[in-house]
Amino acid sequence: MLSDLDIAQAARLRPIHAVAADLGLTDDDIERYGRNIAKIDLAVLQRLTDHPRGRYIVVTAITPTPLGEGKTTTTIGLGQALARLGKRSVVTIRQPSMGPTFGIKGGAAGGGYSQVVPMEPFNLHLTGDIHAVGAAHNLLAAMIDNHLHHGNRLDIDPYTVSWTRVVDISDRALRQVIVGLGGKENGPVRQAQFDITVASEVMAILALTTGLHDLRQRLGRIVVAHTRDGAPVTADDLRAAGAMTVLLKEAIKPNLLQTLEGSPALVHCGPFANIAHGASSVLADLIGLHCADYVVTESGFGADIGFEKFCEHQMPRLGSGA
Amino acid sequence: MLSDLDIAQAARLRPIHAVAADLGLTDDDIERYGRNIAKIDLAVLQRLTDHPRGRYIVVTAITPTPLGEGKTTTTIGLGQALARLGKRSVVTIRQPSMGPTFGIKGGAAGGGYSQVVPMEPFNLHLTGDIHAVGAAHNLLAAMIDNHLHHGNRLDIDPYTVSWTRVVDISDRALRQVIVGLGGKENGPVRQAQFDITVASEVMAILALTTGLHDLRQRLGRIVVAHTRDGAPVTADDLRAAGAMTVLLKEAIKPNLLQTLEGSPALVHCGPFANIAHGASSVLADLIGLHCADYVVTESGFGADIGFEKFCEHQMPRLGSGA
Amino acid sequence: MLSDLDIAQAARLRPIHAVAADLGLTDDDIERYGRNIAKIDLAVLQRLTDHPRGRYIVVTAITPTPLGEGKTTTTIGLGQALARLGKRSVVTIRQPSMGPTFGIKGGAAGGGYSQVVPMEPFNLHLTGDIHAVGAAHNLLAAMIDNHLHHGNRLDIDPYTVSWTRVVDISDRALRQVIVGLGGKENGPVRQAQFDITVASEVMAILALTTGLHDLRQRLGRIVVAHTRDGAPVTADDLRAAGAMTVLLKEAIKPNLLQTLEGSPALVHCGPFANIAHGASSVLADLIGLHCADYVVTESGFGADIGFEKFCEHQMPRLGSGA
Amino acid sequence: MLSDLDIAQAARLRPIHAVAADLGLTDDDIERYGRNIAKIDLAVLQRLTDHPRGRYIVVTAITPTPLGEGKTTTTIGLGQALARLGKRSVVTIRQPSMGPTFGIKGGAAGGGYSQVVPMEPFNLHLTGDIHAVGAAHNLLAAMIDNHLHHGNRLDIDPYTVSWTRVVDISDRALRQVIVGLGGKENGPVRQAQFDITVASEVMAILALTTGLHDLRQRLGRIVVAHTRDGAPVTADDLRAAGAMTVLLKEAIKPNLLQTLEGSPALVHCGPFANIAHGASSVLADLIGLHCADYVVTESGFGADIGFEKFCEHQMPRLGSGA
Repeated sequence: MLSDLDIAQAARLRPIHAVAADLGLTDDDIERYGRNIAKIDLAVLQRLTDHPRGRYIVVTAITPTPLGEGKTTTTIGLGQALARLGKRSVVTIRQPSMGPTFGIKGGAAGGGYSQVVPMEPFNLHLTGDIHAVGAAHNLLAAMIDNHLHHGNRLDIDPYTVSWTRVVDISDRALRQVIVGLGGKENGPVRQAQFDITVASEVMAILALTTGLHDLRQRLGRIVVAHTRDGAPVTADDLRAAGAMTVLLKEAIKPNLLQTLEGSPALVHCGPFANIAHGASSVLADLIGLHCADYVVTESGFGADIGFEKFCEHQMPRLGSGA
Repeated sequence: MLSDLDIAQAARLRPIHAVAADLGLTDDDIERYGRNIAKIDLAVLQRLTDHPRGRYIVVTAITPTPLGEGKTTTTIGLGQALARLGKRSVVTIRQPSMGPTFGIKGGAAGGGYSQVVPMEPFNLHLTGDIHAVGAAHNLLAAMIDNHLHHGNRLDIDPYTVSWTRVVDISDRALRQVIVGLGGKENGPVRQAQFDITVASEVMAILALTTGLHDLRQRLGRIVVAHTRDGAPVTADDLRAAGAMTVLLKEAIKPNLLQTLEGSPALVHCGPFANIAHGASSVLADLIGLHCADYVVTESGFGADIGFEKFCEHQMPRLGSGA
Repeated sequence: MLSDLDIAQAARLRPIHAVAADLGLTDDDIERYGRNIAKIDLAVLQRLTDHPRGRYIVVTAITPTPLGEGKTTTTIGLGQALARLGKRSVVTIRQPSMGPTFGIKGGAAGGGYSQVVPMEPFNLHLTGDIHAVGAAHNLLAAMIDNHLHHGNRLDIDPYTVSWTRVVDISDRALRQVIVGLGGKENGPVRQAQFDITVASEVMAILALTTGLHDLRQRLGRIVVAHTRDGAPVTADDLRAAGAMTVLLKEAIKPNLLQTLEGSPALVHCGPFANIAHGASSVLADLIGLHCADYVVTESGFGADIGFEKFCEHQMPRLGSGA
Repeated sequence: MLSDLDIAQAARLRPIHAVAADLGLTDDDIERYGRNIAKIDLAVLQRLTDHPRGRYIVVTAITPTPLGEGKTTTTIGLGQALARLGKRSVVTIRQPSMGPTFGIKGGAAGGGYSQVVPMEPFNLHLTGDIHAVGAAHNLLAAMIDNHLHHGNRLDIDPYTVSWTRVVDISDRALRQVIVGLGGKENGPVRQAQFDITVASEVMAILALTTGLHDLRQRLGRIVVAHTRDGAPVTADDLRAAGAMTVLLKEAIKPNLLQTLEGSPALVHCGPFANIAHGASSVLADLIGLHCADYVVTESGFGADIGFEKFCEHQMPRLGSGA
């Protein structure tokens, strides 16, 4: 019996512009990242705004388990099946964290003959979106400590800083740290935390945003701490949101890959279902709905958590943004 | 008078495959990253191994200053001038760290009418190479603490761990930290450091390597600590080098951009001249030497440091690898 | 109306040898500490072993409050009243921590015309017993980290070290600390705690011991950590108990002071009622029972906690040791 | 051959009041601490102010060594010899730290037949002076962090806090610590140090003071930190000096012990010669000069450091205070 890896590596991939063409997208609509991956320009949404909307299929599961339940495999398989039936279908799934990639759970690209390919970039850097999220997240973190260091004009209470730093590796030693040691130049000394990048609020925001302007607004409203008087301190107060948006300019664009059978697969964002809404991005779903007859997506974790958040956060935005 | 940014944004860029064609490279030799950036496949080196070698021009400067001395601007201008004279020329320069991008020194793409474009991706993520270096570096760091945590089979003396973590942001609070707090699950508790990613030894290795196999060997020989008996502990001892190499599979390929006048510019690696050799990569130079009549490159920092290291480390590898 | 301090300072104190004489103790039985304080030699117990035993009166209270309930004042007043009635009476109370002395609760010497004097030494160093407890406690703590530093022959799991350090000042900054920083010579780095000295297990042991030999045994059995295999590590395993006993050689002897009306008051130990049994020492009570007709003592905190522990820990020892 | 300990334990000690009588001191002039130790009341100085002054003999040595050079042994022997010659002599020496007591150097009570006795209390708590110095020192330290915690009214720059904490044990793990962890209630988080108690500036001050009022003034002038504007912050600014003085009320009085031949020995203070002036106290010397024909003292470390500081700091105060 062949392993997932064997099957994925044996796959003969279609050129990505051909996959894009299945969705009615031209070379001007995509930016290639190598031969089999492309980012989709958001301008597509304006161009297709009057296009009829496809149908929306959500795969969920009742009980989450440490080893997963097969939601992604089912989602991809369903997309492939619809395509084989001659329907214009697209699957929208999340990009996995590199952390678990080196752990037990394995890749998040599906399994067996129901996978998204190419497998290796999918499981590693892909087009760098997670790195960009990490850079934006950590820029804000650095600006907080920098603000404390330079006189703390906003009168931030250092003990209320809830904005962590992130790293895209499972690194237990960074979970709880003390930062700012080594003297006045590096201070203030603080207890601090690192999370895994996909758990960042920036990742959740990226998944829920409907465009660059909306992203800029949402980032600016992030609350990172409170003043000694109890007032919230936001990324806008620290003048961080503009630079964060610049860092996310490419990451906001969904990535186009393909299933093992060559039908389109949109891969975008990776919000942790246990703390965020746990579905792929609103933008990926919107593009799918405008370009295909069927969009098959999944909502993370068990139905009790993931599907509820999906209905509350993901669904409304699809309507308003379309 | 127009600013560097005005000039760069007003530039009309040639499609990257046309720029590649000037170097005798076909669509099969490159992997596009968007419209104006491509990675060059290392297989090119095998194909062109018998190709006559171009000439090699090194720009250096006597005295380093905090604001730079114009080495990159001169390098790019020289490349443009040679191209205008009808010569097949290519410039090879380093990718800047994002950290200083938000600081005083500004971009590292040259200046005035002597710039590499597109400017924005050049100064930000580009094709994700620095992120990949950071991921490989931090994976090794996590594996060290993980090894200490799981019984320390190699008998590493924790006080000898010289391998830091890295972040691609100027973050003073991370310069000196304590990691491993929060109880046994996160331990051991250690004093540790963060460097900026471009200062990573992985970056220096990537710039000096002559191929994927050589990279794997060099990564494996990195010394990260010593045992209590004083024996060196390497990345190979920790079985980290294989995964690190996988993470660097794309980053090893030089990036093709263009000058403001449309001539080819290879952008690769960003080793810190004050601690490493401070020049673009051996692989970028090799590709340039096989594909062009003139390769204009620069050696970082002052001639007393940068040029000396250039002659000692960069030059010999060009010969042996060609 | 006069304050407690006014009343205490206006008191005319009897020479301490005269107070001792009331208890049938000669100059050979006591060691003077200044004019109005003496330590009682434990040899007294052997000499008086066949002496008839006095009666034992315990003062307790139902509900503890942050400001106290007046147990000590009642205890002292009762001792004074019995003496005025012509009975040979002695009160046994605890020595207060210096920490709260500088806080709101004020002294622990009683109040009004029901106080133990001299007030100032009572509330400060007295005869140095608390300092000795602190020195013994911290010696053991230093020997633990020293053991970890020098190869950890006992294979102590550093995360199981439950032995804190102590300080006799309310010092919030020391509650949670990281020790062992500054390099290998000072290591290992560990999260650690400081308690207030009177909360030390050494203080509880000193209050419950029946003699120097018993003290040595009890100190040796203190569990300070566990091995990686889960076996308990004791002060004897670290060879600390002998030196600790030497440091407590004087502290084991009860201190003789007087009430405002000149009747004898034994002041000894200061175990925290909320974590220990919260009564003065077994040795002070035993001496009192052999030398007086009535011993009035108190059990700390509310009756539900303090009196229960008193009956369980203090009472049995009085019988067996007598 | 008998050890120092054998000799010291075999000694038959004179009652301390008899030793005091040799110096012309009555029972009213001393406060006994057990049978063989007494503190001398400072009122003695007023009473004897017109008394003729004795001669002052300083023992020093050229080169300090890790094992000592025998200065104390010579000092004590000289005092004994003068007494045997029928002269009224007294030796003044320092009290040793308990830290080194458990180390290699052994006691500091002299050696052979030239010792100060009783040996054990001399080497341990004696009359609690070092504990009192530690308590005063640590009270000031706690008040600094408490001040930072409660709004920092004085605008102290936390990085300028030069006042350490102290412990009277050789405890390597405390040399460099981080304090203030565990949340806002315990903060601020700071890098801090512990010294050994005898290295405290409070100890140096106690050795140089000429009386309680002078002590209060000197303690108040201790500089513990600087404001953000660079102004010094003193113990008086923190209102700590009063409480510190109270804690030192007994420690300011010199301790009277005896040599093996029964002649008087004043033991007081223990300033570290390598950082302070390294001689016994001005007050002990002054009392000696008023009560005896010959005062034999020593200046710590080598003559190049200790004797020079002795002449500069100790000598002038003897004149002015007499």
